Amino acid sequence: MGCTGLVGQQFVRLLEDHPYFEVVALTSSSRSAGTAYGEAMAWAVGGDVPGFARELEVIETSPETVLGRSPEIVFSALPAAAAEGIERVLRERGVRVFSNASARRLDADVPILIPEVNPGHLEAARRQAASYGGFIVTNSNCSTSGLVMVLKPLERFGIRDVEVATYQSISGAGRRGLAAMDITGNVIPFIRNEEEKMETESRKILGEAAGASFIPAPFSVGATCCRVGVREGHLMSVSVRFAGPVSVEAVREALASFRGVPQELGLPTAPERPLIVRQEEDRPQPALDAFAGRPERARGMAVSVGRIRARGETVRLVLLVHNTIRGAAGTCLLGAELAVAKNLVN
Amino acid sequence: MGCTGLVGQQFVRLLEDHPYFEVVALTSSSRSAGTAYGEAMAWAVGGDVPGFARELEVIETSPETVLGRSPEIVFSALPAAAAEGIERVLRERGVRVFSNASARRLDADVPILIPEVNPGHLEAARRQAASYGGFIVTNSNCSTSGLVMVLKPLERFGIRDVEVATYQSISGAGRRGLAAMDITGNVIPFIRNEEEKMETESRKILGEAAGASFIPAPFSVGATCCRVGVREGHLMSVSVRFAGPVSVEAVREALASFRGVPQELGLPTAPERPLIVRQEEDRPQPALDAFAGRPERARGMAVSVGRIRARGETVRLVLLVHNTIRGAAGTCLLGAELAVAKNLVN
Amino acid sequence: MGCTGLVGQQFVRLLEDHPYFEVVALTSSSRSAGTAYGEAMAWAVGGDVPGFARELEVIETSPETVLGRSPEIVFSALPAAAAEGIERVLRERGVRVFSNASARRLDADVPILIPEVNPGHLEAARRQAASYGGFIVTNSNCSTSGLVMVLKPLERFGIRDVEVATYQSISGAGRRGLAAMDITGNVIPFIRNEEEKMETESRKILGEAAGASFIPAPFSVGATCCRVGVREGHLMSVSVRFAGPVSVEAVREALASFRGVPQELGLPTAPERPLIVRQEEDRPQPALDAFAGRPERARGMAVSVGRIRARGETVRLVLLVHNTIRGAAGTCLLGAELAVAKNLVN
Amino acid sequence: MGCTGLVGQQFVRLLEDHPYFEVVALTSSSRSAGTAYGEAMAWAVGGDVPGFARELEVIETSPETVLGRSPEIVFSALPAAAAEGIERVLRERGVRVFSNASARRLDADVPILIPEVNPGHLEAARRQAASYGGFIVTNSNCSTSGLVMVLKPLERFGIRDVEVATYQSISGAGRRGLAAMDITGNVIPFIRNEEEKMETESRKILGEAAGASFIPAPFSVGATCCRVGVREGHLMSVSVRFAGPVSVEAVREALASFRGVPQELGLPTAPERPLIVRQEEDRPQPALDAFAGRPERARGMAVSVGRIRARGETVRLVLLVHNTIRGAAGTCLLGAELAVAKNLVN
Repeated sequence: MGCTGLVGQQFVRLLEDHPYFEVVALTSSSRSAGTAYGEAMAWAVGGDVPGFARELEVIETSPETVLGRSPEIVFSALPAAAAEGIERVLRERGVRVFSNASARRLDADVPILIPEVNPGHLEAARRQAASYGGFIVTNSNCSTSGLVMVLKPLERFGIRDVEVATYQSISGAGRRGLAAMDITGNVIPFIRNEEEKMETESRKILGEAAGASFIPAPFSVGATCCRVGVREGHLMSVSVRFAGPVSVEAVREALASFRGVPQELGLPTAPERPLIVRQEEDRPQPALDAFAGRPERARGMAVSVGRIRARGETVRLVLLVHNTIRGAAGTCLLGAELAVAKNLVN
Repeated sequence: MGCTGLVGQQFVRLLEDHPYFEVVALTSSSRSAGTAYGEAMAWAVGGDVPGFARELEVIETSPETVLGRSPEIVFSALPAAAAEGIERVLRERGVRVFSNASARRLDADVPILIPEVNPGHLEAARRQAASYGGFIVTNSNCSTSGLVMVLKPLERFGIRDVEVATYQSISGAGRRGLAAMDITGNVIPFIRNEEEKMETESRKILGEAAGASFIPAPFSVGATCCRVGVREGHLMSVSVRFAGPVSVEAVREALASFRGVPQELGLPTAPERPLIVRQEEDRPQPALDAFAGRPERARGMAVSVGRIRARGETVRLVLLVHNTIRGAAGTCLLGAELAVAKNLVN
Repeated sequence: MGCTGLVGQQFVRLLEDHPYFEVVALTSSSRSAGTAYGEAMAWAVGGDVPGFARELEVIETSPETVLGRSPEIVFSALPAAAAEGIERVLRERGVRVFSNASARRLDADVPILIPEVNPGHLEAARRQAASYGGFIVTNSNCSTSGLVMVLKPLERFGIRDVEVATYQSISGAGRRGLAAMDITGNVIPFIRNEEEKMETESRKILGEAAGASFIPAPFSVGATCCRVGVREGHLMSVSVRFAGPVSVEAVREALASFRGVPQELGLPTAPERPLIVRQEEDRPQPALDAFAGRPERARGMAVSVGRIRARGETVRLVLLVHNTIRGAAGTCLLGAELAVAKNLVN
Repeated sequence: MGCTGLVGQQFVRLLEDHPYFEVVALTSSSRSAGTAYGEAMAWAVGGDVPGFARELEVIETSPETVLGRSPEIVFSALPAAAAEGIERVLRERGVRVFSNASARRLDADVPILIPEVNPGHLEAARRQAASYGGFIVTNSNCSTSGLVMVLKPLERFGIRDVEVATYQSISGAGRRGLAAMDITGNVIPFIRNEEEKMETESRKILGEAAGASFIPAPFSVGATCCRVGVREGHLMSVSVRFAGPVSVEAVREALASFRGVPQELGLPTAPERPLIVRQEEDRPQPALDAFAGRPERARGMAVSVGRIRARGETVRLVLLVHNTIRGAAGTCLLGAELAVAKNLVN
């Protein structure tokens, strides 16, 4: 659902020749519905429109049209307002929804799943299924996904608070979300709702699943989110205060050796190494590192980390995440792959 | 000295029709020496080369050539390595040097003067004059100048620590200091020595003059410095932890009402209001606010502040400083104007 | 009319302290109407909103609201569709309309006036006034204005055909007209209707006023219009084939010595020299030359020309025009100043 | 030779797992010699340094070091001045040199080979081999390669003259060749020697091999070369005057059906379709089309063409070529593949 935007395009690209999933329908708003997918938009995520999708007629997003195709799962790249209603309707009709939309992320029974970070939260989907038939699993806001991937292996040192300043790319605003005059040769120090999302979602993701809901992680997150004139990749400057002194070596080792359940299970879209620790003094950089991740199917799924510095209890570092892959479609797809592996999707 | 670089050009521009100073010579490296200033470089700071400078023959930078012109004061826009030796030689020959170079900033007897922030530090120049005949007064690193302007009026709330992430423009690297392939469509999360400068200089500036030296201010500063593809203006995300809770209103009022000695004295290059507090949710921005400051002569001398947020003891804000004006030539010139007002230059 | 867009803002900026004109009303679409001008939009043309306009309440654009203010003249920065109807209605009600809109440019009785190039075409306004009471005078498309300024002094060599390729800035698309994802790090080789406008308008402007209409100039113009990621200033590569061989020196001399009626009359917004011939091998450049023109009031009104090369009958050159000043508001205002001088406005 | 620059890196990338060639040595200037290739530079052409090259020690470029490795062929990505001497020395020692350097392109006995365009010119290499033992084959300047690919299938209509304006990317200036302050938010309407190269090389390539030398094609080419702030891909606006009227359909058909010898022979780096004709009104664009070409090994080897317009005898179009692949390393490699197929390399 929502297949013509940048995140929707990434979904389509990642689903080409996917070993688990077969696309039965692509939906969009009424503007593009009725045309072949290959004609429905300007393809903007590299290469060409995948062959399977080129001639597929786009259908209008609605509960009826979607249910008419009897999907086992639905990937949602809808805007929040459009997702608001339809995702819950589909859940009640038994559909498993994997959603990049922010609409339901903070629902008490809906997990924000970053498979390497909180795979156990997927159990909340099982509880939803018991209530509704279907379920909704969300992935986080694009910036948050990079942040929690790096914080997870650092939890062992006792995180007390986190200060983050972002350098976010223009693709994060969607294809038409930002006017050229506003960002060309400029920095915009404001992205609506982004700081609140980072501060809330990261603590939910790193929090504990407790019965029917989630207890936020016991540290504070403060964010300042800025837009820069880069096409792809969100860079972040992160400062973490720990319970006690931590060394650069300990941090580097914790990050470099990090592996998650997706790596153990060998899920198709899982990068071999979820975190790439750069030793150069001036990396990561969006132009060089946005597409980190191997094998080919996992390009853009690894988060790059560099410039690790420690002073007393404080560690500073810089990280980079591909915002529409690891920060959106890729993580959402990886979540669905994990659900298959955990028999939540048959 | 060093009149062909971007900072040198700003000096020349600002010295046109200056009420206190008259230019008797312009110096540069041997590459440009011997040519008319108007032909010596590509003028890159707006408008045209000032009439007074156009036909002036550039002389090579050396103690002899400079002393040969018997200047009462010298403005130095030399690179650090070139400044290293010559500035001290000139001081010993009785010259008053106002320098943008970093070479002598951390000398125990040399002040880093931001006239609105630490005018009292100028007394250290008087002590130098007693020892050497002349003196050296420096201004700070470009990013630091914006930071301390904003921290000064917040000292009353009890600063405990400061976390800053910068979005620095390419002009900060000088005219040829950065390759286009490195920064176009990119962010570079490293600027050599910049973080150390911010962390050290800001504490010296906000510290106390104690006899022959300076006691650093008693708070810590942690910085992450990044380059973005903007031509002019350094933006910063700043997070300050205070001794106790502080309100947004109190911070805003402290910033908006801030005036310094240059404003009281009506110095020519002093902006009417040194800090411009923006109320819009998405300001300041380099493309819109880099040249803040009135009157005309003080364009680029005001620091813009916005996005003030408070949570408990922590206040977050975004500031913007024009790096080659307030962050370099303009503050250096303002320091010399203050020295005239204080009878350190006759 | 249409005071909140980029061209509208330039009109407001240029009308501050204007010796001929006083602003009695500012209009915009219903979205901004009813608010103070200073709050009605993000000011994006440098400096601050002029004092006279800051508190002025913006009124909605309609014949009634405009006529209610009894203006002697109206400047129109409306989009073409909005201008379509209202400009003619105002003309019939006796108003003199100076319009940047394209709607009426090709009307047989409406001149496209570039005061340095075809001042005689203003007589068509007198004929309109005889028929309607009021009149409409347009200025050309932004790119065309630069082209015809350079072609005019070259007519003496016998122009046979003109080939032009443009490098147009994003401000030409208006404040919201272009998405950041479309142009960042990119070139878009298409601007809707732009090539047709250049090909048609330039021949009308350089053509002859013949009784009630205009005979297009007897040469062909071929244009390819591209958008590049520059904020302000349209650059063009122009190749002109003449009736016979022409030397670089002859072309340079013709361009450098060019003066028009506005210069003779000393109109307020006329640049001392309408064409600035650059001798450097790599000029003009948007970042350095977009605001060419003296005195201060005429910043952006001069067209810069460089890289003049001749080979047989063909001359190649590069020119640069500030698209929202010389290419829009500035030329429109200069046209009104000429009309005052010619007693068409009293 | 010259393996650390952008073109050198493209050679290394393209030679990974190449079916014909095995790399026996990588050379560079003394600055990088002696270090492992993976450490010798910042990799800037996507992905990671190929495994085969990572640990390979870079040797200094000199006739002795090169001959010491007994290569059958040598690829040269040297700067012109460095190539000047060594390429001829190597030829005399029996080496077959495929060079991207401009040094020898205009030698009477050296072909500028674009395999799809003038495969017959390779015979000149056979003649050189008879004289010297080895030979030098060059590829053209980066812009020229795109131009001649498009002109070749249009020759049938009788080309009379060609006018071209370029929008060239910053990678064309090499990794350090252009300062960020010069191009950010700017267009530079000058690239040293580029126009002369386009005008001369294109006529040699499209000319006739006549005994020991080449007769330039009998039409004129006029070029204006400009740099824009794009990372990869040179776009060009081209206007061609033919002997008689030509239709858009005829041009489109000629371009779309064009195939060359590399396609017939199925050479490894040959794109299936050398020219991609875009039907959209606003393509090709660097950000979307720079890497045109299939299969994977031929990414960036196809030239994209669009905006075909005809008026009388004149046809206008826009083309895009990847400057360091089709415009440099890729075409040079394709030339070597053709030489293998033609038994010039055994």
